[in-house]
Amino acid sequence: MDTICALATAPGGALGIIRISGPQSLEILSRIFSKNLNDTQPNTIHYGHIVERVAVPQQHTAVIDEAMASIFKAPHSYTGEDSVEISCHGSRYILNKVLELLILHGCRMAEPGEFTQRAFLNGKMDLSQAEAVADLIASTNKATHDIAMSQLRGHFSSQLAQLREQLLKLTSLLELELDFSDHEDLEFADRTELNELVKAINKHITQLAHSFETGKAIKQGIPVAIIGKTNVGKSTLLNRLLHEERAIVSDIHGTTRDTIEDTIELQGVTFRFIDTAGIRQTTDAIEQIGIERTYAAIEKARIVLWLIDKEPSSEEINDIIQRAENKKLIIINNKIDKADNNSYNLLKRPTIPISAKFGTGIDVLEQAIYQAADIPTLTDTDVVVTNARHYDALIRAQQSIQRVIDGMELQLSGDLLSEDLRQALDTLAEITGGQITPNEVLGNIFKNFCVGK
Amino acid sequence: MDTICALATAPGGALGIIRISGPQSLEILSRIFSKNLNDTQPNTIHYGHIVERVAVPQQHTAVIDEAMASIFKAPHSYTGEDSVEISCHGSRYILNKVLELLILHGCRMAEPGEFTQRAFLNGKMDLSQAEAVADLIASTNKATHDIAMSQLRGHFSSQLAQLREQLLKLTSLLELELDFSDHEDLEFADRTELNELVKAINKHITQLAHSFETGKAIKQGIPVAIIGKTNVGKSTLLNRLLHEERAIVSDIHGTTRDTIEDTIELQGVTFRFIDTAGIRQTTDAIEQIGIERTYAAIEKARIVLWLIDKEPSSEEINDIIQRAENKKLIIINNKIDKADNNSYNLLKRPTIPISAKFGTGIDVLEQAIYQAADIPTLTDTDVVVTNARHYDALIRAQQSIQRVIDGMELQLSGDLLSEDLRQALDTLAEITGGQITPNEVLGNIFKNFCVGK
Repeated sequence: MDTICALATAPGGALGIIRISGPQSLEILSRIFSKNLNDTQPNTIHYGHIVERVAVPQQHTAVIDEAMASIFKAPHSYTGEDSVEISCHGSRYILNKVLELLILHGCRMAEPGEFTQRAFLNGKMDLSQAEAVADLIASTNKATHDIAMSQLRGHFSSQLAQLREQLLKLTSLLELELDFSDHEDLEFADRTELNELVKAINKHITQLAHSFETGKAIKQGIPVAIIGKTNVGKSTLLNRLLHEERAIVSDIHGTTRDTIEDTIELQGVTFRFIDTAGIRQTTDAIEQIGIERTYAAIEKARIVLWLIDKEPSSEEINDIIQRAENKKLIIINNKIDKADNNSYNLLKRPTIPISAKFGTGIDVLEQAIYQAADIPTLTDTDVVVTNARHYDALIRAQQSIQRVIDGMELQLSGDLLSEDLRQALDTLAEITGGQITPNEVLGNIFKNFCVGK
Repeated sequence: MDTICALATAPGGALGIIRISGPQSLEILSRIFSKNLNDTQPNTIHYGHIVERVAVPQQHTAVIDEAMASIFKAPHSYTGEDSVEISCHGSRYILNKVLELLILHGCRMAEPGEFTQRAFLNGKMDLSQAEAVADLIASTNKATHDIAMSQLRGHFSSQLAQLREQLLKLTSLLELELDFSDHEDLEFADRTELNELVKAINKHITQLAHSFETGKAIKQGIPVAIIGKTNVGKSTLLNRLLHEERAIVSDIHGTTRDTIEDTIELQGVTFRFIDTAGIRQTTDAIEQIGIERTYAAIEKARIVLWLIDKEPSSEEINDIIQRAENKKLIIINNKIDKADNNSYNLLKRPTIPISAKFGTGIDVLEQAIYQAADIPTLTDTDVVVTNARHYDALIRAQQSIQRVIDGMELQLSGDLLSEDLRQALDTLAEITGGQITPNEVLGNIFKNFCVGK
């Protein structure tokens, strides 16, 4: 097994952490460290110098950095292997130099996600937990964090284990039935218990698969379209919503967040405004393009904010309501600061009165947007599927179970059903990597990780 | 003393490190950690959960992250205080949340450089070493790294200590002379030893001050101007030089370097091309602006690359040579791939023949540029002053010493000289912070640090 190394922190901070993992970790470290740490106690920290033995112009030992080495020993490390974390000054030159020295002395640069892949291969976590690590690192708000953390802590895995147990029980009940039918020559066994069990399993898998819609929306941000006529205040509203965003902890000195354009966070959930380029354009496109753009925006959105400042015609009303049929439509009555904005007869729907210009009613609107997202209140142990690979496996497992249900209705014998049951078991095992996972699948999973994790 | 916290790594990596320092470090950590680490051994690492006790909707403990806490105890830590480093997943949400919890439980956000400032105040390093920490973190090449590391390891400090000893010796020799003159009524003491000592001191201080020119060039990059007529190939040469840069370690997978525009590194030294905007312009400015721009570029440069593709007129030759009198002028004969490029009679200077288009001769040119920079070969212990504050103090100390030398030539008595000697001692002590440093000076020094260091 190779010993791998990588920079585990983003370049540019006060500190940089370089990770080493593999059987030669301590040996290679000792070759570039001012102390021999081969026989040191695990979970200890050692101060010393990163050194380079230089031959020219004369033999000497160049100090690359003053550093701390944290020592971990197998199996009690993240990867399950002997590991080291070197904490250096965050200089680009130093970090490169330390990596260069490690490679010179026998390490190889880690592939993206290779530390976590080793953790999986060494049984430190299952595959869905490994995937949760990447999600956790990418999490930018409470909702994405909580779902990833629940998955990392194994709540999804334990639900899958529960399903597996039920499927195994089902299998053994069918086998019992087979034995029974052999001996007693009974044509039809009593399948009440089997029926109940398979339906419970089906319900559970369906629930998990169904959570993917929520999971996807939370992970990618909920798409929101702002539509309305020219000069109704779409751009003003957009800017208002983007700027109203609460000054949250991310404003703490020194932890500036990356600017994510045109998204807001409401109660820990990200909302993503789509097609805002058109809204921000100062010159108006010709009318026809405007309408097509509106339809396209509605199509892509989950929530549609329809901004009006006077009553639309019944044609318009019917058009928009029909287009937004499967969406959450929020009708916003803008410019309430102006006196002539009052009588609404045709529009038999509630509107939210605001003044985008003066900020009136924005809090009510935000609350309405959040509620329209219909995100369930999640507890720490709730499982929400956010991963397309998991969703795909759940759907396939659900199809196998459906075939079992159909077969039972047709009174098929147990040996005909057991094949589909086995299929369902195998498919669920794909999620946790419970059976041998092809390298190609592993490669696809870990290639999206950052290096150093 | 407050307990301070800060993110010590750049956001966006696999891992993020949060630093805590101060008397309450372990107590506050224990309030947000799944284990009580109040009475733990120093220099040990502990795995656990960062937790938040939540009251609504129901009382529970939310897990923010799985993390490692490294424990350091006073005085054996970077700051000299009890300290903790929390290693979490590098998610923006998590890092913000952990900082938020630490602040909630009694920490305060650290000011830029406050950890290093505490290290200085607690006697872990002197002021010039503290300043070297910031330089070391900012170092992007071998030259800037080596100078900062030498300073951090105290080589500058020990030269200052040596100067201090010599100045104290000088002071006591003068006192002895005073005592002697009182008792023996001698008008003129023998000042041979005094003279030698003060001249040695003067030479040493002057050398240190003189190194600032090299230090500044290394730190800021050596300014290089490319001049020459329209269509002589300036843009092609610039691109060639920028791209010829050796694929160094910074290309190691996952350690992408920030793109620094229009600089190259030759043998660990940065060269900075100035006024390249004009060179890159595709449309030519009118002739007069071109000439003024050329003169301005020469003015700002330390090295001037004069690109020609046919022999210039004697007027041009005289003009450029005169303008570049105090610069290193490298005359480059471009387009040697073309047949008509051969006879040079007026230009009685060596030229470097290249083809910017085909890359011919670029290695020779790079070597010439590096040599023109005239950077001395530095050993690990060489001291190069890179800091304007230090330079300023050295110049003032040198002026005091000069007054001593002048006074000795005028045969002034020891008590008249000792004031200037004391002044020199005090001024040198400013560099290391050896005497009480005003808060304003400290503030100016540390405000340029990054947060978390």
